[in-house]
Amino acid sequence: MKIAVLGGDGFVGWPTSLHLSDQGHEIHILDNLSRRWIDTELGVQSLTPMDSIQERTRVWHAETGRRIHFHLIDLAKDYELLKGWLAKHRPDAIIHFAEQRAAPYSMKSDRHKNYTVSNNVNATHNLLNAMVELDLDAHLVHLGTMGVYGYSTVGAAIPEGYLPVGIETVDGRTVSQEILYPSNPGSIYHMTKCLDQQLFQFYAKNDALRITDLHQGIVWGTHTEQTRRHAQLVNRFDYDGDYGTVLNRFLIQAAIGYPLTVHGTGGQTRAFIHIQDSVRCIEIALKNPPQRGGRVEIFNQMTETHRVRDLAEMISKMTGAEIAWLPNPRKEAAENDLIVRNEKFLGLGLDPTTLGEGLLDEIVEVAKKFAYRVDRSRVPAVSAWTKDIAAKVERDPEGKRLKSVS
Amino acid sequence: MKIAVLGGDGFVGWPTSLHLSDQGHEIHILDNLSRRWIDTELGVQSLTPMDSIQERTRVWHAETGRRIHFHLIDLAKDYELLKGWLAKHRPDAIIHFAEQRAAPYSMKSDRHKNYTVSNNVNATHNLLNAMVELDLDAHLVHLGTMGVYGYSTVGAAIPEGYLPVGIETVDGRTVSQEILYPSNPGSIYHMTKCLDQQLFQFYAKNDALRITDLHQGIVWGTHTEQTRRHAQLVNRFDYDGDYGTVLNRFLIQAAIGYPLTVHGTGGQTRAFIHIQDSVRCIEIALKNPPQRGGRVEIFNQMTETHRVRDLAEMISKMTGAEIAWLPNPRKEAAENDLIVRNEKFLGLGLDPTTLGEGLLDEIVEVAKKFAYRVDRSRVPAVSAWTKDIAAKVERDPEGKRLKSVS
Ligand SMILES: NC(=O)c1ccc[n+]([C@@H]2O[C@H](COP(=O)([O-])OP(=O)(O)OC[C@H]3O[C@@H](n4cnc5c(N)ncnc54)[C@H](O)[C@@H]3O)[C@@H](O)[C@H]2O)c1
Ligand SMILES: NC(=O)c1ccc[n+]([C@@H]2O[C@H](COP(=O)([O-])OP(=O)(O)OC[C@H]3O[C@@H](n4cnc5c(N)ncnc54)[C@H](O)[C@@H]3O)[C@@H](O)[C@H]2O)c1
Repeated sequence: MKIAVLGGDGFVGWPTSLHLSDQGHEIHILDNLSRRWIDTELGVQSLTPMDSIQERTRVWHAETGRRIHFHLIDLAKDYELLKGWLAKHRPDAIIHFAEQRAAPYSMKSDRHKNYTVSNNVNATHNLLNAMVELDLDAHLVHLGTMGVYGYSTVGAAIPEGYLPVGIETVDGRTVSQEILYPSNPGSIYHMTKCLDQQLFQFYAKNDALRITDLHQGIVWGTHTEQTRRHAQLVNRFDYDGDYGTVLNRFLIQAAIGYPLTVHGTGGQTRAFIHIQDSVRCIEIALKNPPQRGGRVEIFNQMTETHRVRDLAEMISKMTGAEIAWLPNPRKEAAENDLIVRNEKFLGLGLDPTTLGEGLLDEIVEVAKKFAYRVDRSRVPAVSAWTKDIAAKVERDPEGKRLKSVS
Repeated sequence: MKIAVLGGDGFVGWPTSLHLSDQGHEIHILDNLSRRWIDTELGVQSLTPMDSIQERTRVWHAETGRRIHFHLIDLAKDYELLKGWLAKHRPDAIIHFAEQRAAPYSMKSDRHKNYTVSNNVNATHNLLNAMVELDLDAHLVHLGTMGVYGYSTVGAAIPEGYLPVGIETVDGRTVSQEILYPSNPGSIYHMTKCLDQQLFQFYAKNDALRITDLHQGIVWGTHTEQTRRHAQLVNRFDYDGDYGTVLNRFLIQAAIGYPLTVHGTGGQTRAFIHIQDSVRCIEIALKNPPQRGGRVEIFNQMTETHRVRDLAEMISKMTGAEIAWLPNPRKEAAENDLIVRNEKFLGLGLDPTTLGEGLLDEIVEVAKKFAYRVDRSRVPAVSAWTKDIAAKVERDPEGKRLKSVS
């Protein structure tokens, strides 16, 4: 297959490109490299020394003889360029990772809110629009998030995208209908994924586009089979307060002797998936496209759920790290349960790599190896969800906060 | 009150500005005049000779001694300008009409799709974002559409925004929850209003903004009490295939001896409201803001529903006009029922002006008076929802189509 990987220079996009290239697919990465620019803006860098995309693809070719092509295109701003590229290459499948994906970054300031909404909505809409315009019947696989569901509080399991509900008619009957699961996003970033969902629903209905939306949990880990093959194929590893995600952050904090930063009670339950499984899920999704004219296919792409404080305690036990209980910069319920259905990927052969598999050690290894690259001042999460919360967090400045260690 | 009317140069925004100014409120119109530019793009014009906004506000001042202020600002593109304006003026209320509002225009081409999504999403988001940034606790009243609901097909009445549903828990109980009514938009334009809804839900929850969303039916009529006061205060009247809406279009077609253009079987049921009632509803909504921290207030702003073919037959009987049954350029169900709850406005004192009130004659009068301004070639609706439909509509060109008259 000829596959376009939009956002293929990113944390999930890069190992996905390698994995699919390894299987013999023709891979084209389209990326505007905005994520590298954001590193510059924030003054942070990947824990792992990450080469340029041009150098990475050169190394991959030298190692395997396979070519991954790179095209510098901004999906959100270069509609005509994107359309021209799609018209020329007419890929069989398109994997869409190309969005601003950090919730804290999306809440930093009004500029960051606008950027996230505008970048993500326009990237997704430009793509759908161009596909229709070109009559391109490629299978579109999009990376969404578990965060579109909000966190169920009524003790119901979160289904894979669609929810059967009973609606009362005027003559007193109850009619059962399947609706897109009601969304309740917790940040501007998550909200953009809810907007994406609406775009997908419309284009599947009006134009019969074949779309798969993967509602992904938090990705942990760093290596996949392919990134291990050469030092320069190493994956990105974000540890900073904006882009670093909870499990990976705890592991690096442990490795550099920084207390594990738990926000609030740590009672938030989150869904997780290892990077190797994420890549496999995308492969499975590619092999199982929906029918033309059918509804948007939705998978819950996660393998386990954990409460944040349980993770912290586990890693603390494993590494001896302390735990710091900090005020929560997010506006969210202090405690939530989360029950998630994921039978679809399991039924199609996914064999999950869970936290118990010993891969945590591997990440601590990576973290220790590159600990000299860590800027400790970038570890705290400082983006607050509202000005009130920001004021509260500031009244309890970092120094003091880190003293209140368990 | 100091009220900002965003999009106050438009069909509903202008009479709303006059009505509220007449009541002694301080009115500021913010508009980028894009609607006038679209007239130029399409080579059409309002049936009624519409002066510049500067001239209209001058005439209003001469007639009443009251000032309406005009500010040329693009909400979607000039975030800093908008924020600066809001910071300086800090209005008590904001009425937001400023979006591209024609479904056929939004489906014309890929450029029009992109424009509609980008203009509407960014306009709404910039506004919400700036309000939070400035800690501006103004009551935001937005004009949405009945089209966000899609058209209910299960025989249930459409509630005012929120739907009670039963959700099954893992232990077999059914928990009742109120959700935002599942959306099912029929065009890119309608979809943008669904995206707006998501933005409102988020900002009401995260930032406690006070927001009212008016899900409006198709507006008919042209005059209000204030627009009647002087020839130069006349309202815009769109009759072309893109911006003209069904009832007003039938009336002008009747007035110029053009067959009434019914798409498909005319079995579509639509919700309607007279322009005078629309303006009154907005006044009522302004007087009943939601509480800070409460949920988004949603009203169904419509007074009656009719099937399109019934309207055509009524107007045919009234005027002797013929009916032309044309292929439907839209992708939609041929026939649909529509039962809509609107008790909230009625309970707050709205006394509806229905089709039976003799105001239809008034519009035919207006149409006859300005019939010399009509470009007959602009009357047909030519934007098709998909390329397949476009091909079908073209195979049956206008000349032939208009012969198949009932
Ligand atoms: N990492 C996670 O834990 C996680 C969890 C759930 C969902 N996701 C989703 O998976 C996708 C990939 O996540 P990631 O962690 O690899 O993110 P990332 O930021 O590392 O990668 C995103 C890539 O997209 C590119 N990009 C962004 N906007 C673009 C535009 N307008 N035009 C072209 N390229 C653009 C960036 O330069 C970057 O290379 C995202 O959509 C994200 O929302 C990630
Ligand atoms: N007319 C109807 O039948 C109807 C029905 C339901 C809902 N609505 C909604 O009511 C609102 C007003 O409708 P209308 O018929 O008066 O439309 P209109 O097109 O006549 O007026 C919209 C006004 O907003 C302005 N505008 C658009 N984008 C802008 C931007 N980015 N910045 C600043 N100004 C901008 C335009 O120049 C125009 O003056 C719309 O939001 C529409 O969706 C209208």
